[in-house]
Amino acid sequence: MATVMNEADLAAFLVREFPQVESDFRIERLTEDGIVVRLKVTDRHLRPGGTVSGPSIFGLADVAVYLAILARIGPVALAVTTNGGVDFLRKPVAGADLIGTARLLKLGRVLAVGDVLIRSDGQEEPVARASMTYSIPPRR
Amino acid sequence: MATVMNEADLAAFLVREFPQVESDFRIERLTEDGIVVRLKVTDRHLRPGGTVSGPSIFGLADVAVYLAILARIGPVALAVTTNGGVDFLRKPVAGADLIGTARLLKLGRVLAVGDVLIRSDGQEEPVARASMTYSIPPRR
Amino acid sequence: MATVMNEADLAAFLVREFPQVESDFRIERLTEDGIVVRLKVTDRHLRPGGTVSGPSIFGLADVAVYLAILARIGPVALAVTTNGGVDFLRKPVAGADLIGTARLLKLGRVLAVGDVLIRSDGQEEPVARASMTYSIPPRR
Amino acid sequence: MATVMNEADLAAFLVREFPQVESDFRIERLTEDGIVVRLKVTDRHLRPGGTVSGPSIFGLADVAVYLAILARIGPVALAVTTNGGVDFLRKPVAGADLIGTARLLKLGRVLAVGDVLIRSDGQEEPVARASMTYSIPPRR
Repeated sequence: MATVMNEADLAAFLVREFPQVESDFRIERLTEDGIVVRLKVTDRHLRPGGTVSGPSIFGLADVAVYLAILARIGPVALAVTTNGGVDFLRKPVAGADLIGTARLLKLGRVLAVGDVLIRSDGQEEPVARASMTYSIPPRR
Repeated sequence: MATVMNEADLAAFLVREFPQVESDFRIERLTEDGIVVRLKVTDRHLRPGGTVSGPSIFGLADVAVYLAILARIGPVALAVTTNGGVDFLRKPVAGADLIGTARLLKLGRVLAVGDVLIRSDGQEEPVARASMTYSIPPRR
Repeated sequence: MATVMNEADLAAFLVREFPQVESDFRIERLTEDGIVVRLKVTDRHLRPGGTVSGPSIFGLADVAVYLAILARIGPVALAVTTNGGVDFLRKPVAGADLIGTARLLKLGRVLAVGDVLIRSDGQEEPVARASMTYSIPPRR
Repeated sequence: MATVMNEADLAAFLVREFPQVESDFRIERLTEDGIVVRLKVTDRHLRPGGTVSGPSIFGLADVAVYLAILARIGPVALAVTTNGGVDFLRKPVAGADLIGTARLLKLGRVLAVGDVLIRSDGQEEPVARASMTYSIPPRR
């Protein structure tokens, strides 16, 4: 799928539109069918025992699929999440960032769907798997 | 299902074990089959336009089912979320807290499942629906 | 939500449009916010040990939410399922029909969402919980 | 993950334990991290318009992850599905079989999780995406 925004465009978009959370994330790279996004884990993402919280993992998956979509349709769209599902598979490695690898499975006129594998930085086995559906508003 | 912790016990548990997030939540009341939990919405839960973020809604659902389980099995258990799914249905009302009404559907030996309806405080129509599965460690 | 089709209308619709499966189901009654549908369990729904198969349970949930939507928007719409999730909670009672109780949580312009509790006929505790999302085509 | 059953073992297991459905499926091949299974589409899998039914797609995903697990833990285990989620992405090609490509994401002591991409035979773009969780009984 052809992209209309590159990594720098997406990063600037996050700074402008999501100032509350943009410092949490770093866009690693666009891929053929998706994107790789890093969650820069800090204390506020942690639960007792040093594990990354469920909502933080959900947030990484949500942002990754959102950016994968915007990279293909541009920043004007007001896509909203309509469904999100996460399987939590393993305890994340303490002190490591999380890397979300998203792929777009459908980019339709009204719905877009992607899934995400989330790993602790440097590990092979996934910490979580997520799928996200977005509703795409009519284009004018 | 009989409870072994009351609202005050659960609140004290949150303060002790989840200091990062306990101020976000207020336990409204235990119910016959579940619990009602309030997310005290503040700026850090918001997205542009004043809507509550997806991860905040996920977090409310997660905490509500978790507390509904602990109220029945006690604070010793290290239950972990294994699966969570959310349908986002409507935009929350700006400036209103969110109220999560959870019911336990299964409280088994190794798995517990609950679902949650989330509404803006004072509204009838739900903002989101969620289901959560927890793995319950072996009891000694 | 006001209905535009009653139980007999919906049954006739099933016979006409879904001849392969209509004999599996009986519409028990429309409710304030949804519908109750029975799966008439026969050998072809069973797995070894006499339990009802996962796909049969999925099918009951899918049909129930579909009919709950059609009852409110009429038979012309070509709604299609875009997402379905099922939590399997307990083994169904051998030899008993399954009763699906669906409620509509959202009936929007482009998406409709409902959830379903499925019980063995005569039992209180649910066998499964499901949620289903439908995409509704533009009305002309 | 090392396998303890090969394709012929799995096919024989299906014939023996799931006589109701075994003729629907053909095991194409075990892969490094999962399995490829074909749904041999016949009239009973179809809906009006020639599209494959939702329950049939759910059934393919369920069987594929189930067999991917059994190939690694052997035929004695009575694994049961505890959660299944499907995103329906595109209309299947009329008259074509469906090919489910499953990968195991976790094979734990009590839970196993896999996901599946389902395509019409010969097509690149997926018809559906599914994830399935199984509860694995204690081994003796």
